[in-house]
Amino acid sequence: MKYSEMSRDELLCELKEQRSLYNYYAAKKNTYDMTRGKPSNILLDLSNDMLDTKYLGDFKTKNGIDCRNYGLHDGIPEAKQLMGEIMGVDSSRVIVCGNSSLNIMYDTIMKFMQFGVNKGSKPWGKYEKVKFICPAPGYDRHFTICEALGIEMITVDLKEDGPDMDVVENLVASDNSIKGMWSVPKYSNPTGIVYSDEVIKRLARMECKAQDFRIFWDDAYAVHFLNDKPDDLLNMIEECKTAGNENRAIVFTSTSKITYAGAGIAAMASSKSNIEYISGLMFPQTIGYDKISQLRHVNYLKDYNGILNHMKKHAAILKPKFDMVINTLEEELAGLEILNWSNPKGGYFISIDTIDGLADKVVQLAKDCGVLLTPAGSTFPYKKDPRNRNIRIAPSFPEIKDLEAAIKILCVCIKICSLEYIYNQTM
Amino acid sequence: MKYSEMSRDELLCELKEQRSLYNYYAAKKNTYDMTRGKPSNILLDLSNDMLDTKYLGDFKTKNGIDCRNYGLHDGIPEAKQLMGEIMGVDSSRVIVCGNSSLNIMYDTIMKFMQFGVNKGSKPWGKYEKVKFICPAPGYDRHFTICEALGIEMITVDLKEDGPDMDVVENLVASDNSIKGMWSVPKYSNPTGIVYSDEVIKRLARMECKAQDFRIFWDDAYAVHFLNDKPDDLLNMIEECKTAGNENRAIVFTSTSKITYAGAGIAAMASSKSNIEYISGLMFPQTIGYDKISQLRHVNYLKDYNGILNHMKKHAAILKPKFDMVINTLEEELAGLEILNWSNPKGGYFISIDTIDGLADKVVQLAKDCGVLLTPAGSTFPYKKDPRNRNIRIAPSFPEIKDLEAAIKILCVCIKICSLEYIYNQTM
Repeated sequence: MKYSEMSRDELLCELKEQRSLYNYYAAKKNTYDMTRGKPSNILLDLSNDMLDTKYLGDFKTKNGIDCRNYGLHDGIPEAKQLMGEIMGVDSSRVIVCGNSSLNIMYDTIMKFMQFGVNKGSKPWGKYEKVKFICPAPGYDRHFTICEALGIEMITVDLKEDGPDMDVVENLVASDNSIKGMWSVPKYSNPTGIVYSDEVIKRLARMECKAQDFRIFWDDAYAVHFLNDKPDDLLNMIEECKTAGNENRAIVFTSTSKITYAGAGIAAMASSKSNIEYISGLMFPQTIGYDKISQLRHVNYLKDYNGILNHMKKHAAILKPKFDMVINTLEEELAGLEILNWSNPKGGYFISIDTIDGLADKVVQLAKDCGVLLTPAGSTFPYKKDPRNRNIRIAPSFPEIKDLEAAIKILCVCIKICSLEYIYNQTM
Repeated sequence: MKYSEMSRDELLCELKEQRSLYNYYAAKKNTYDMTRGKPSNILLDLSNDMLDTKYLGDFKTKNGIDCRNYGLHDGIPEAKQLMGEIMGVDSSRVIVCGNSSLNIMYDTIMKFMQFGVNKGSKPWGKYEKVKFICPAPGYDRHFTICEALGIEMITVDLKEDGPDMDVVENLVASDNSIKGMWSVPKYSNPTGIVYSDEVIKRLARMECKAQDFRIFWDDAYAVHFLNDKPDDLLNMIEECKTAGNENRAIVFTSTSKITYAGAGIAAMASSKSNIEYISGLMFPQTIGYDKISQLRHVNYLKDYNGILNHMKKHAAILKPKFDMVINTLEEELAGLEILNWSNPKGGYFISIDTIDGLADKVVQLAKDCGVLLTPAGSTFPYKKDPRNRNIRIAPSFPEIKDLEAAIKILCVCIKICSLEYIYNQTM
């Protein structure tokens, strides 16, 4: 029965029951951490063989460069090839760096602030104001970069097929200070949605007032499917080229959630001229990133098929966790009309929307019962969810039995907050 | 006999002999590359055992953090300890990053351009002009960073005991736009000199007009001795603190020339408040650098004594090369008064000064005979050696027999250029 159709007595009765259940869980004093999208130990173990020295051979790249020594500031050729396959881009338009794609994104924006987006363009830092379009719910770390750099964030709804394109098109067409936009096109963090062909085409084609507008295309979950294979999205770089905007998109990816979150390799790709420009700006920055790690990854993962096979092992571990969360939400909350949840086909998160205004209360109540969640609002610019309803669930790290316990507690918290809200509404 | 005391006939005769020697070498068509201070394969081989998985244990830090996973954006505690020992700084004031200290220096300057040197200070990028003091001859990559960022470089003579302090003190006392200074205090690149206690004290104490003046203390060769042990310099960070300028110096170092040039670990150290500030600015930049590499380094090198023992193996390979270069220069050129050379007790380079105005000619002549040297002028800001006399010799990479051949050719080139010059002078 829908909570909203319950009488005041029924609501009170249900509230009493849920509160006693809450107290029962609270008395156990267990703690469950679902704050970050971290791989579990079992997921990490999948890549331990990579550390075997057999994957380093004689330390040399195919073209004879010793990976132990200086050089190749934009990556070894084999790693460009491998990371290019993940992003669907020719290796000549790929730069491979250290272990963190977030670091590459930050560095790229810092370079654009300092030097502009290409030779001769005005540095972003010289403008009165720089704004980014931030589809939300989104990745908190993207928003943290903007906040750190004083870039004004414009929140745009992330819908089932991508950002609300009517809004995006209107914004970029009229405002020269909008210089950038974040996107997680595949298995979006946190809702898990996938950009539709139409959205991608519209992003590639749209008229932008700012000539130095760039889309930061964070393909963090490019190969992170939960079923048989990754979804097949349109290639953003090709779409941009076709639309005559070949410098618009810069793609980022990493193996952080393929091999090791703390010791993967990360890469970027874009048009030939963007890559030449950025590689040129990187030259003063470093003589080269860790090429031993690059070589190790290439020899271990081999190629795109090798990666897909590896990711099947990930899916075999992650899928049951995702299923368990979805099934528990279904069992506990279906028909009550107090929660919407996503059912992603890949990625690292499940996103839930409570009744408007309740997310922070739910997170606090869960915390008091030992279930640690990413703070409500984190998935929005300035940590402010305008409807205060979105909560990110990160099922990857806890063991499945802990996850089940945590989600059951979370459901109780959602019920309590919803019941209190509806009860008060009926006064 | 000094060339300058030869008669014109004697000069011509000697020139003829050297030219015929040159042609003899040129006919062999060998190539010798001494352009960069790269470790040789044998030096790299010294660290190959580090790649054994035994140095990774259960992947955990002492405080239980799994190095394969996310986190610890400023480094694992053990790596802070180890790198702190190299720099003589408590681990609480150390940040450990990726594999390149040049990258940390670049990033730090970028942050100062964008955010200022501490909370509330004006970003360097907001000043009309930012200048750096560049003791020279110095490290070309320092100068490249300044050039890339539009920072005006002021060349100051690097003497036997450090930069010319009378000049430095005058400059910083009077010019508010001087915001920074480069220093390679130990076994300076390229002259190999070591800063004296007096120079270090004066740098720590001097009055600076700019309150946001910072010294970039590149301790790249902290443990890179050629004899028994490293020279013992005053601790710059402590001297700054004693002088009441505790935020003045930022120290950088790496294991690039201890383990692998292409896969070491790098670190920075400074005052508590500088490190807290910079660590805070790094938070949006990355979730963490490669912690597997950090753990591997710690378990392999163990501690400062472990590093010194490792560096003795380096010295055993490098010392004979340095000796051979010095001995050859001595044998070929002593008493001619056409060349000065350094005789470093550590580091990676030998620096030579020709007669003023001849360095570029010597480098070109050597190149035409197959001996590739760092371009003349590279050791100076804007690649302009005002006296056109300094050439950097990098003995680390070539095998010793190749090095001997290359230095002999170089000596012939120096003789030819000097003879031509002196002959023309006598007209």
